[in-house]
Amino acid sequence: MKEVKIGILGFGTVGAGVVEGILKNGELMAQRTGIFPKIGKIADLDIKSDRGVKVDKAILTTDALSVINDPEIDVIVELIGGVRIARDFVLRALENGKPVVTANKALLAEAGRELFEASAKSGAGLYFEASVGGGIPVLRALRDGLVGNRIKSMYGILNGTCNYILTRMEREGLDFDAVLADAQKLGYAETPPDLDIDGIDTAHKAVVLASLAYGAPVSMDAFTIEGIRGLSHREIEYAGELGYRIKLLAAIREVNGEIEMRVEPSLVPKKHLLASVHDAYNAVFIEGDVVGSTLYYGRGAGRLPTASAVIGDIMEAAAGKGGCSAWLLNHKVLPVCDAKNISIRCYLRLSLKDQPDVIAQVAHVLGKNKISIASMIQKEQNAGEQVPVVFLTHKALEKNYAVAMEEIEALDVVDGKPVRMAIEDFEG
Amino acid sequence: MKEVKIGILGFGTVGAGVVEGILKNGELMAQRTGIFPKIGKIADLDIKSDRGVKVDKAILTTDALSVINDPEIDVIVELIGGVRIARDFVLRALENGKPVVTANKALLAEAGRELFEASAKSGAGLYFEASVGGGIPVLRALRDGLVGNRIKSMYGILNGTCNYILTRMEREGLDFDAVLADAQKLGYAETPPDLDIDGIDTAHKAVVLASLAYGAPVSMDAFTIEGIRGLSHREIEYAGELGYRIKLLAAIREVNGEIEMRVEPSLVPKKHLLASVHDAYNAVFIEGDVVGSTLYYGRGAGRLPTASAVIGDIMEAAAGKGGCSAWLLNHKVLPVCDAKNISIRCYLRLSLKDQPDVIAQVAHVLGKNKISIASMIQKEQNAGEQVPVVFLTHKALEKNYAVAMEEIEALDVVDGKPVRMAIEDFEG
Repeated sequence: MKEVKIGILGFGTVGAGVVEGILKNGELMAQRTGIFPKIGKIADLDIKSDRGVKVDKAILTTDALSVINDPEIDVIVELIGGVRIARDFVLRALENGKPVVTANKALLAEAGRELFEASAKSGAGLYFEASVGGGIPVLRALRDGLVGNRIKSMYGILNGTCNYILTRMEREGLDFDAVLADAQKLGYAETPPDLDIDGIDTAHKAVVLASLAYGAPVSMDAFTIEGIRGLSHREIEYAGELGYRIKLLAAIREVNGEIEMRVEPSLVPKKHLLASVHDAYNAVFIEGDVVGSTLYYGRGAGRLPTASAVIGDIMEAAAGKGGCSAWLLNHKVLPVCDAKNISIRCYLRLSLKDQPDVIAQVAHVLGKNKISIASMIQKEQNAGEQVPVVFLTHKALEKNYAVAMEEIEALDVVDGKPVRMAIEDFEG
Repeated sequence: MKEVKIGILGFGTVGAGVVEGILKNGELMAQRTGIFPKIGKIADLDIKSDRGVKVDKAILTTDALSVINDPEIDVIVELIGGVRIARDFVLRALENGKPVVTANKALLAEAGRELFEASAKSGAGLYFEASVGGGIPVLRALRDGLVGNRIKSMYGILNGTCNYILTRMEREGLDFDAVLADAQKLGYAETPPDLDIDGIDTAHKAVVLASLAYGAPVSMDAFTIEGIRGLSHREIEYAGELGYRIKLLAAIREVNGEIEMRVEPSLVPKKHLLASVHDAYNAVFIEGDVVGSTLYYGRGAGRLPTASAVIGDIMEAAAGKGGCSAWLLNHKVLPVCDAKNISIRCYLRLSLKDQPDVIAQVAHVLGKNKISIASMIQKEQNAGEQVPVVFLTHKALEKNYAVAMEEIEALDVVDGKPVRMAIEDFEG
């Protein structure tokens, strides 16, 4: 029986989950793979607090480098988070020829290329299944199962906090701020919640997905990133009446040899499986040119689900299967499409004055900007009140929407800021 | 650039799909993996018919053994189907030290152990992702991504033909026979359709899933297999009113160290993702003790989806990653639970005579057999007509249902054969 010795950097929630999973199922994994995973060392600045798992105190250290440099340690697991220090440790480990497992999407999105190059150079694999979709083995699916496919599109619900908030807003008829506050109290959202609710976390994960499908790297500046902050319950209600549910979606598509990428709250038809992904669950819908449509679903975060993915990677590293750094570097890199030239359908919600020609004025602006209306709903109001009107449009260019929205906002008959969201129909 | 030469046995629908996929995306795969897949030889009894893909006639042969024995061929792809001949060819190839890729679930279910042993002995891998769930990379998920999990349960919609029929029965309000005839006309069901509609194909796939989770082999005789033949549209309608959809489900669970396994039409709550798997799509819901709930969805059959899985396996074989024969043989084998001792909830539909004490008589039989009623619906009928009554039960032992159903059928007040189906609530 081969034994692999694991060095863990960062003994937080996920680190403790990894230890728990390995203590629980180490024997089973050894039966399955012929390799027994053993916790060799754990580094953290805090080596006093109880993490609810049983570890020999002798393996705890505050010195991460002593773990990285220990010749007895076979695999390094980076669970520190953040970019700067994590990057230094991961680079050092790879340069030492040690395979590294990480769940750190920010690190991959921001320093990925450098790490993949170090990995390819030293031959030590870099494994990061846990960085996208928590416990869902979706990166493996892309890399191995779908290797024979050109990836036509990927649509992901990738942030559990946002999906939890959106689910509760819909179920309970509440506005964003109320649910966020409660989610923070319950531990479903962090304080501050910005990385999650502003779409940054989703964007980091989208970058990792795009790397595997279309070659590294995609810059975070190259695509639209919008979160769900301040979303009104009215949008959820109107979208629902029209047969849609609002999800924070990463949409990644290959169109004519370019990558179209966006992260924003989007209307998903209720009949689509992604609309049935509720609470803190994640899912990725992937379309390949050979396999057709596939979907992968599971818990997107949390101590044990993330640990499941980390452990899968540890066992792959232990088996010396090599990771996918070479893949990412060899892959022909597709350029990212200019956000202005992406063609999408939209949901527009306006507050209009109650006077005869308002619809005509708005319709005129849309038409002038080559945006045609697919459907419209106008709610009955009391005379003199503002009238909420919702338009669903056919596909039009992002840059035309930008001009149209400015012109619409400037109309005298329009009150407040118009709301615009993408509609995703998943065609082709 | 390493090149791998592929020998294909069986140039039918899937064989042609594999060739199409490789011709289309071979360059892309080479970029990604550093290995270029090349079709070396193709064996089929018919080497004249046009398959709609371009191949050099010189690589076609009617002699499968000449492919297996060709030292130039690196990987054998078995797409002949059936058990006897396929087994001989696969064994020969493995004994020759050649990795084999197959989509043949019947072969794996009926001769799996022998093949895994031959594979482990010679060190040539046996790969079979395409045998379950068509293009969905679900076996890889089980083997690699979820390696750190004890698998608590797996629930699969594994037969596209049955799911297509059930979907149309529900949508169009038709009975089984009408939809089957049309499905055969449209190519969604084979003639004869028995393997699909009687649940055999689903059972073969369930055996493969159980092997990966709990160790090979499970005998086809060791568990209940029931198909959807003759299912009445009334069942779909009543189940729908109660909040359920009927799916042909493979249910595999570990309970107290034993495997509980069943293949039968089952009521799935409409809110569960599996209830949203429509048409010819497949899905597998897997619960691990670390990762929690996960789901994998995609096309369960067809030329290209199956080819996608076969190609993924070819590239894994080409990279020399070794397959999972050792895994299957080393894995501690859990015993299969006696079908009589499985505890399930049931849907019972009876036709009762329109007289005062009928419900009491049925309820008495159920109670006597330790089956308690969770809910009941009785439809209003004209006086003197038979009254359809539906009971949903709490969990009870399969053996108690068997006795109760006989006793109920023997009651004077019951007309015709009572209908019984499992209810799956996916708890724990």
